[in-house]
Amino acid sequence: MASPEREKEYPPDLSEEQLFSLVTQIKDWQINHGSLLKVIESEIEHSVLSHPVGVTCFPTLFPRAQFQQGLDIQEIYNELYCSVAEDEEWVFDAIRNLVPVEPLAGALWGIHQAAKKAGSVQDVHLGIFRSDYMLHLTEDEQAASPRARPKTTLKQVEFNSFSCAGASHANKVANMHRYLTRKGVYNLDDALYDVASLPVNKNIEALASALALAHQTYGGPRSKLARQTAVLFIVQPYNFNIADERPIEYALWNREEPVPAYRLDWGPQVLQYTRLTENRELLFQPPWLPSKDPVEISVVYLRAGYEAHEYNLTGFEARLQLEKSAAIKCPSILAHLTTFKKVQQALTLPGALERFLSESDAAAIRKTFVPVYPLDETEDGLYARGLACDRKRSGNFILKPSLEGGGNNVYGNEIPDFLASISESQWSRYILMERINPPISPNLLMSSAGLNGGDVVSELGVLGCCLWKANSTDDGCDMLHNSVGGWTLKTKHVEVDEMSVVKGYGCFDTPRLVDA
Amino acid sequence: MASPEREKEYPPDLSEEQLFSLVTQIKDWQINHGSLLKVIESEIEHSVLSHPVGVTCFPTLFPRAQFQQGLDIQEIYNELYCSVAEDEEWVFDAIRNLVPVEPLAGALWGIHQAAKKAGSVQDVHLGIFRSDYMLHLTEDEQAASPRARPKTTLKQVEFNSFSCAGASHANKVANMHRYLTRKGVYNLDDALYDVASLPVNKNIEALASALALAHQTYGGPRSKLARQTAVLFIVQPYNFNIADERPIEYALWNREEPVPAYRLDWGPQVLQYTRLTENRELLFQPPWLPSKDPVEISVVYLRAGYEAHEYNLTGFEARLQLEKSAAIKCPSILAHLTTFKKVQQALTLPGALERFLSESDAAAIRKTFVPVYPLDETEDGLYARGLACDRKRSGNFILKPSLEGGGNNVYGNEIPDFLASISESQWSRYILMERINPPISPNLLMSSAGLNGGDVVSELGVLGCCLWKANSTDDGCDMLHNSVGGWTLKTKHVEVDEMSVVKGYGCFDTPRLVDA
Repeated sequence: MASPEREKEYPPDLSEEQLFSLVTQIKDWQINHGSLLKVIESEIEHSVLSHPVGVTCFPTLFPRAQFQQGLDIQEIYNELYCSVAEDEEWVFDAIRNLVPVEPLAGALWGIHQAAKKAGSVQDVHLGIFRSDYMLHLTEDEQAASPRARPKTTLKQVEFNSFSCAGASHANKVANMHRYLTRKGVYNLDDALYDVASLPVNKNIEALASALALAHQTYGGPRSKLARQTAVLFIVQPYNFNIADERPIEYALWNREEPVPAYRLDWGPQVLQYTRLTENRELLFQPPWLPSKDPVEISVVYLRAGYEAHEYNLTGFEARLQLEKSAAIKCPSILAHLTTFKKVQQALTLPGALERFLSESDAAAIRKTFVPVYPLDETEDGLYARGLACDRKRSGNFILKPSLEGGGNNVYGNEIPDFLASISESQWSRYILMERINPPISPNLLMSSAGLNGGDVVSELGVLGCCLWKANSTDDGCDMLHNSVGGWTLKTKHVEVDEMSVVKGYGCFDTPRLVDA
Repeated sequence: MASPEREKEYPPDLSEEQLFSLVTQIKDWQINHGSLLKVIESEIEHSVLSHPVGVTCFPTLFPRAQFQQGLDIQEIYNELYCSVAEDEEWVFDAIRNLVPVEPLAGALWGIHQAAKKAGSVQDVHLGIFRSDYMLHLTEDEQAASPRARPKTTLKQVEFNSFSCAGASHANKVANMHRYLTRKGVYNLDDALYDVASLPVNKNIEALASALALAHQTYGGPRSKLARQTAVLFIVQPYNFNIADERPIEYALWNREEPVPAYRLDWGPQVLQYTRLTENRELLFQPPWLPSKDPVEISVVYLRAGYEAHEYNLTGFEARLQLEKSAAIKCPSILAHLTTFKKVQQALTLPGALERFLSESDAAAIRKTFVPVYPLDETEDGLYARGLACDRKRSGNFILKPSLEGGGNNVYGNEIPDFLASISESQWSRYILMERINPPISPNLLMSSAGLNGGDVVSELGVLGCCLWKANSTDDGCDMLHNSVGGWTLKTKHVEVDEMSVVKGYGCFDTPRLVDA
């Protein structure tokens, strides 16, 4: 095991020649393994340019216990969110104040209501979730000697129940760091820098397995018009990040018992190429097979539809058609709604976790929470408004809208002015979350934006895969499958607030696990 | 099996929508699987652009019997070229007239002489060969109804014993065509367009296995200074075609018993980072591990050094150091020399094959020959000079210099003027080969140069892997291993003479095997 003494030298200083060798090997590996992004607007009919996705040059040190903790509690998180997704009343309570002011929430709730009116013809649902964490230092620890390995706890940043990205890239980059390590490219003492300290990543296989399981659970074609069933990926048109989506599709085709998987762009194409039978089987007519029998869709895997603007009239109709269908949805609208930050906040309220989990499971989950407040007109909300508008106290908080990702967050001292700049009626769209204070490590980040060394912080994502069945007798759910899907690690310079890799702020990374 | 009636419709006409779907799926597959070329001069320290390598949109029809014939005779070809490579006298006779006029031949012969003087310390050699063929129509067949499936024979274009490229790309594209076919993207009747008609390609695994076998044959470190052995790839600096080389390296590292594999640029780096011990073990000091023990090289795999300009003083010294070493060379200088067209021509002379092979094996090989003539001052050479300078008869020939690849060939009616334009003393550098008349099929070729339909012709390459030991008692060789490594198929528009894929003329392809 690595000694603290030695870790001070990590990552090692490299000579110019060593660095050249390292970055050359990284780029070549990325080209050969699809660790790439399409260059935006470079695609023409017969060709397209791509460049390597951002990666850390070195795996980042990460405490083994907290990594394992994240994996260990994922099945509880899966159970929690499946249960929440089957508790319509609770979900509505949580987002009640959001529906009138947040267009995406309004659209999804509207689709849910319309689908409910039609009556459900599929009580099995698939979830591919990702719970994101950062390590958190207590203030005492921050003040301690920077030489000592700081004690940290694992704190949840957010929970994603919809269209979780990054799994394939994380898988590839983990393979890359293992390769570079095995090859000795890092010029570190072998004992110190052991491949065994880099956890294996099988995200792609795990996600494909979850989709395959749902596909099998659906069974053979129910409609007489179809001769086969298939998984349908609903994707954003002209997505430049196909290297994250496509591997899951390929893995389905490459299984010992291949699972047919097709993709269709979000929006008008859904209405053009799919239709519901009388019994609401979802039939798909592949555009490239106009004269063949349609394919019956067993599983709809949504990788689009996470932004409000996608729900124009056509988008709304398209999602409704999918939701009303007999296909297993990954995820259902209700499960999608659990991705809102308001749900995350509502789960921190006293007794909320205990509604869904055993006491010990609830305790394990609560350990990962930082204080989160609503910003509505409830008692808690009014308290939080006081914090948020106070220039002296807002510094320790992040203001988050109930949107996907971290792109619209407002940080610390900027919160009071931001709130002053918008109408108070909009404040309910936000939650106020205590800032996590992550430990800082040095690393070297490489992307099309440059090669930059410096202090970085990391975010661990733990993927969960679960298949569940609504239980009509007790409003709960029966878990048909519950597993950890794998993990992602994203790392950014400490002075950057946002973590998005595809926007160029963050880099895919691999934890190098160390004992505290 | 496909009926001739149906094959007339192959490849099928696609609607605009079908075509869009097809090319999109091809590009995405290529990005995800490293079926790419670096964009020349796009590489900077922290990034590099790449674009898809040229591929055919459809697999090209190819007669099953001739495909199988190519595979079936490869082990005989391997045996032939191993035996030739151990027959120094015969090789010298074949290239004797070339050495004074062809700088590459001169350099290689010089290195061979110098290495021989030092005495050999390694009698085991590795060959990774590729025999290239085209299908050949007799004149009668050409005149026959274009509707009938023409009868063809398999004729050798050239034999490559040095630095055979394309194996990895061929492997990837074969996987791609299988994927597209399985997915039904071609909108063809399943029975007609069966995946089973696309041969599986395992080139990468096969080449890595051959290198691994040589590595094992070498055994553990002989020098006390080294703690491990490794395969060393010698490559061209700044090669934009790393997606053909790197997969073999990765496959070595990924074996159940990983084989360390490193790469080093041709030229000064070889002298800077490798050295010979007193017993001529080849020690490699990886530039990124300046302070660690050197690695003893078990196998030198040459993917550079095939052009005359690479043999300046440094290049000469570098290759000599490698050749003199105890490492197993892939290939030895003598095996390298067998790649010259003069050797191909000399093997067509009466009795030449029988010197190395049994009568029946010689007959199997001779079947694949077209007439090839020297252009020197021998009786045959003088006859060929007559053909080449005759405007009426030269049309049926190709003039080929004894260089790698097809980039310097002169075709048909251009031969007389070309010969008139160079000094007669240079004519011995060339051989005169009867043109092969390949059958023509329609296909759609896609590369960064465009998406172009039209008549195409294909070239089948069959890869051979062999490990042999010089037999000092009878000047022959003992085969330690002899196998077919796989195949490549390259396809170009019929009006283009040259086949190079990396130059953009040709596309990687997969045969769709049909019975005659």
